[in-house]
Amino acid sequence: MVKVILPDQSVREYPGPVSAADVAADISPGLARAALAAEVDGKLVDLARPLGEGEHRLRLLTGRDAESLEVLRHTAAHVLAQAMRRLYGDKVQYTIGPALVDDFQYGFYYDFDLPGPVSTEDLSAIEDEMRRIVKEDLPITCETLPVEQAKARLAERGQAYKQEMIDDLVQLQDAKEVSLYAQGEFLDMCRGPHLPSTGRLGKAFRLVSVAGAYWRGDETKPMLTRIYGTAFFDPKQLAEHLERVEQARKRDHRVLGKQLGLFLLSEQVGPGIPLWLPNGATVRMELENWLRGELVKRGYSIVYTPHIGKLDLYRTSGHYPYYKESQFPPIELGDEEGYLLKPMNCPHHIQIYKAAAHSYRDLPVRLAEFGQVYRFEQSGELNGLVRVRGFCQDDAHIFCTPEQVEAEVAGCVEMVQMVLQTLELSDYRVRIGLRDRGSDKYVGSPDNWDRAEANIRHVVQNSGMRYTEEAGEAAFYGPKIDFVVKDAIGRDWQLGTVQVDYNLPERFELEYAGADNRAHRPVMIHRAPFGSLERFIGILIEHFAGAFPLWLAPVQVAVLPVSEKHVDYAATVAEALRNVALRVELAGGPEKIGAKIRQATLNKIPYMCIVGAREEADRTVSVRHRTGGDVGAVSAEALVGRLVAERDSRGATIAFEVPGGQPADTPG
Amino acid sequence: MVKVILPDQSVREYPGPVSAADVAADISPGLARAALAAEVDGKLVDLARPLGEGEHRLRLLTGRDAESLEVLRHTAAHVLAQAMRRLYGDKVQYTIGPALVDDFQYGFYYDFDLPGPVSTEDLSAIEDEMRRIVKEDLPITCETLPVEQAKARLAERGQAYKQEMIDDLVQLQDAKEVSLYAQGEFLDMCRGPHLPSTGRLGKAFRLVSVAGAYWRGDETKPMLTRIYGTAFFDPKQLAEHLERVEQARKRDHRVLGKQLGLFLLSEQVGPGIPLWLPNGATVRMELENWLRGELVKRGYSIVYTPHIGKLDLYRTSGHYPYYKESQFPPIELGDEEGYLLKPMNCPHHIQIYKAAAHSYRDLPVRLAEFGQVYRFEQSGELNGLVRVRGFCQDDAHIFCTPEQVEAEVAGCVEMVQMVLQTLELSDYRVRIGLRDRGSDKYVGSPDNWDRAEANIRHVVQNSGMRYTEEAGEAAFYGPKIDFVVKDAIGRDWQLGTVQVDYNLPERFELEYAGADNRAHRPVMIHRAPFGSLERFIGILIEHFAGAFPLWLAPVQVAVLPVSEKHVDYAATVAEALRNVALRVELAGGPEKIGAKIRQATLNKIPYMCIVGAREEADRTVSVRHRTGGDVGAVSAEALVGRLVAERDSRGATIAFEVPGGQPADTPG
Repeated sequence: MVKVILPDQSVREYPGPVSAADVAADISPGLARAALAAEVDGKLVDLARPLGEGEHRLRLLTGRDAESLEVLRHTAAHVLAQAMRRLYGDKVQYTIGPALVDDFQYGFYYDFDLPGPVSTEDLSAIEDEMRRIVKEDLPITCETLPVEQAKARLAERGQAYKQEMIDDLVQLQDAKEVSLYAQGEFLDMCRGPHLPSTGRLGKAFRLVSVAGAYWRGDETKPMLTRIYGTAFFDPKQLAEHLERVEQARKRDHRVLGKQLGLFLLSEQVGPGIPLWLPNGATVRMELENWLRGELVKRGYSIVYTPHIGKLDLYRTSGHYPYYKESQFPPIELGDEEGYLLKPMNCPHHIQIYKAAAHSYRDLPVRLAEFGQVYRFEQSGELNGLVRVRGFCQDDAHIFCTPEQVEAEVAGCVEMVQMVLQTLELSDYRVRIGLRDRGSDKYVGSPDNWDRAEANIRHVVQNSGMRYTEEAGEAAFYGPKIDFVVKDAIGRDWQLGTVQVDYNLPERFELEYAGADNRAHRPVMIHRAPFGSLERFIGILIEHFAGAFPLWLAPVQVAVLPVSEKHVDYAATVAEALRNVALRVELAGGPEKIGAKIRQATLNKIPYMCIVGAREEADRTVSVRHRTGGDVGAVSAEALVGRLVAERDSRGATIAFEVPGGQPADTPG
Repeated sequence: MVKVILPDQSVREYPGPVSAADVAADISPGLARAALAAEVDGKLVDLARPLGEGEHRLRLLTGRDAESLEVLRHTAAHVLAQAMRRLYGDKVQYTIGPALVDDFQYGFYYDFDLPGPVSTEDLSAIEDEMRRIVKEDLPITCETLPVEQAKARLAERGQAYKQEMIDDLVQLQDAKEVSLYAQGEFLDMCRGPHLPSTGRLGKAFRLVSVAGAYWRGDETKPMLTRIYGTAFFDPKQLAEHLERVEQARKRDHRVLGKQLGLFLLSEQVGPGIPLWLPNGATVRMELENWLRGELVKRGYSIVYTPHIGKLDLYRTSGHYPYYKESQFPPIELGDEEGYLLKPMNCPHHIQIYKAAAHSYRDLPVRLAEFGQVYRFEQSGELNGLVRVRGFCQDDAHIFCTPEQVEAEVAGCVEMVQMVLQTLELSDYRVRIGLRDRGSDKYVGSPDNWDRAEANIRHVVQNSGMRYTEEAGEAAFYGPKIDFVVKDAIGRDWQLGTVQVDYNLPERFELEYAGADNRAHRPVMIHRAPFGSLERFIGILIEHFAGAFPLWLAPVQVAVLPVSEKHVDYAATVAEALRNVALRVELAGGPEKIGAKIRQATLNKIPYMCIVGAREEADRTVSVRHRTGGDVGAVSAEALVGRLVAERDSRGATIAFEVPGGQPADTPG
């Protein structure tokens, strides 16, 4: 007797053995056609897997369920391996071929030991073979065998790596049997689940690249050939994905960083420690100045603190030696206490708080700093500006009473929202990290936690933002809010964060005198709208494809005289623009105007002012936008006024309507 | 036969032994009265010292000669020791008693081993005894004796320390005889020279403090009592000096830094590594923003670089291991190359220069950064903000052709002058450091040196500044200019510097393509108008006695309602001021108006706006300056306009004439 409970709580009972596929067919022929896999009692399984005697919770998965994508891509990997065997013969050994669902670029890969080289030119032939296998619609079946039998079956197909993998399963997990998946002549060891047949893979897959990868990531082991691909349920999704990847490639901040002179990574200085080149420094400076102004308006005090601190400071904070692995080693001074390159700014800000006595009337104290910190990321994980070893946090710490937490968190949220809005990153959601009520790892009183969690939830609800709550995702020192932001091409980035902290005030014995004239412990809030300027600007470069809004653009206006005769007039135009602190480049050289326009466009300079005989006679300029749109002639005075308005509004006011311009990210 | 050549080249001849005193008497009775000591053949000696047979160059020194001050103060130290013996008895041992001429505070001291304690309360009695000794006008005589005889004479007076000192002279300098100076019953071993008699010390001396000092500065040796005093040639000089010292005491930036909440030195963070508190951070930020604007106007590019660099970078620059002692020890990484906390910014800026190819058309490249650097000063030398272990340089490096050096140096000098002028530090002179033409320690071709030295001299002469040239004072890598600035109370500080460098371009193999299309080596100029923001602001605090000009003041305006009835109106005034980004404090509390004025004055807030019934009715404010002067009533609009004008002119425009105000440095 098999009893099946469906997600709508409806119940079906079957007298004998039954599979998820049988149940689907029992419900409707449409569902039978759409079903790809099943979740039985919380576990993902093949549709064909028999449900045992007793009661089961069953979810039938179709292309509409997120989990199905992994199954689809996993099957795609098997189809790829089958195609490789067909094309490159029996010597082909297939090793590991997982589905990837969180990777921006790839959906699956398979690592092969091949008799000869394969390059990207070969991918389309391999894809064609895969399509043939899809057309054959081979049923995919699963069989569980004792390990020796499984090894023998794979040995028949010359699969030596699989022998090693099975041996590992025996040794490490004490496996007695393993499951083998078959589709036509192809056989693989695999946990599954898979689609019911190769036909269900459909047409929406693509092989995208070939790379080398050591067997087991160990450079003493053989080098294998990794083939990356991706797969979706329908061709439209695939096309969108490929377009997004292409966009991301064009927007790669490491490439644009070099091309636009934004930043430098130097082996001589050290890996992962960026130097800001003049153009990038301008972007950073504009962001800092703007944010600093916004902080001052909101009652923050700016401070500066040093980049080192005595080790004992970090022993008190608890960051040393517990986080030793992610920090640069200390500066040892022999007899004297050593120093640590600061991994965060909080202990320094705490010293500032402690430098004066505080009464409840002074609170909240809000200390802000663009504080450079250093963390020792593993060199393999370093990536341009987004994963670095030295970065500048737009950091602040608020010291407040427990009663003030809600208002202060609300202020922080408002500021993050304002920042994201201004930078055209208005598609975001928040994650609220709450404590796991079953655990005792948390510091701070349960009352304070209850209040702070309620405060945070209340603030987020009031803000109208989309949010999820994740129990157990709070830090041990307090609940928090993280902002997850979608960029122009749909990628998610975790940016701003607001964290409530009961721990450091305790460790550093912070106090304020309450209205009752007794000593109380303040609460700390850590918050950073950007997080790290490096990472944030790395993301902004990709978000804007290097075409920064006017206020951030390293060079804001290019003045381009049509010939050398007009250089003097061009200089007066440039001067007028510089007088209102616009960053201007005057291209006074002998190049043709077409070349000058091309160069300014490549440099993503927002506006070009072209001046020739007519413009000089009329005291005008012909304005062209970097997107290629010609705005027409305007007077020099009007130009100045409009550009200043666009700059000072940080893009909220646009200087000129640009007819026929290309999208900002596809200049030239 | 003694032949004496005087400074005016006149010659006097004497048949037999003659002293400088005799020559003075021979010239005129007035000179005989005025003479205090003599310079014979370039050596400072007593007036009474006989000139040997032969030819001598003689300068008679009077109170008008700088060298005399040292003689005067040295004699003052002896008179002090004599007075101590008279007052405290034969057990008094005198050890070392030098004259100080470059010390701002003290003119001399003497270290005593005393039978009992002496405190500052005793100083006036000791001074009285000194005056009696002056009145006695005891002749001061010098006698050179074999060491054993000298030791015996001092032993008779119980001077055990002098025995040790003479033993040292024998051991270290192989001394055979030493000179003893006597005045009345007092006898001391001393190199001299001294005044001819105690009467010549006159009345212009003062004992100023008592301190403990270990014998030979060694803390395992006995603790002695050090009595500090000073002496001048006339009472007016003494009075001026005492006033200056008092001023300096009141202006001590360590005291004002605490009182005004400017900066913090924290043992937890580390000695000598200042943290900028909100008020000090405001001053620093204003200076940085202003200077950054001036840099951009002058064609500098702002960059940011990290605070660490691989050790090998500093091996290439030559800063490691040669300057190891003055740096924090490296961060060791085991297998990987270690990192050094950056002691200077140049190697990083060089990386930026090297990141692109340069043609002579691109030069000069001017890279500027507010770059935090770290140097390991000995803990005993640390002093507030002026001697620290971590500081921010207003640094820049110019990469130019040899032909551009003069114009670039001129630009740097202009910028330093502008900076000093703006900060009311317009009394300065420059020191030009040239190479020692006899030495071969210099890098760079002699041609380039000749040109660069001529350039620098030319620039300084054109500028009309007072200057001195000092051969041998160039760095080994190039000639330089240092600015020596007098502050409001007459103290000299070395501030801005401009240095030409042929060394680093060579070491890092920097290049640019010349007009001849070949690779050439650029010249580097290092320059910093402030030098270090920490030190510069430390000096500014003392220069302004904490009463910063409006544009720098942490709080610029205090709005003071006379009673709580007027808080609303006061808030509208404060709002109007804040709308033009003035930093405003509104004292809305229940305190009396007198207390509010007192507090704002203590906080050195430039302007107070007092609002009561009359002001509210008339929509005015009564303006009072921190110096105590009442400006009278002005409309809120006029107030805003005038304060903005004063702020934006950086003090060149003054908002209000302040009648009857106290000098800015003596508020309250």
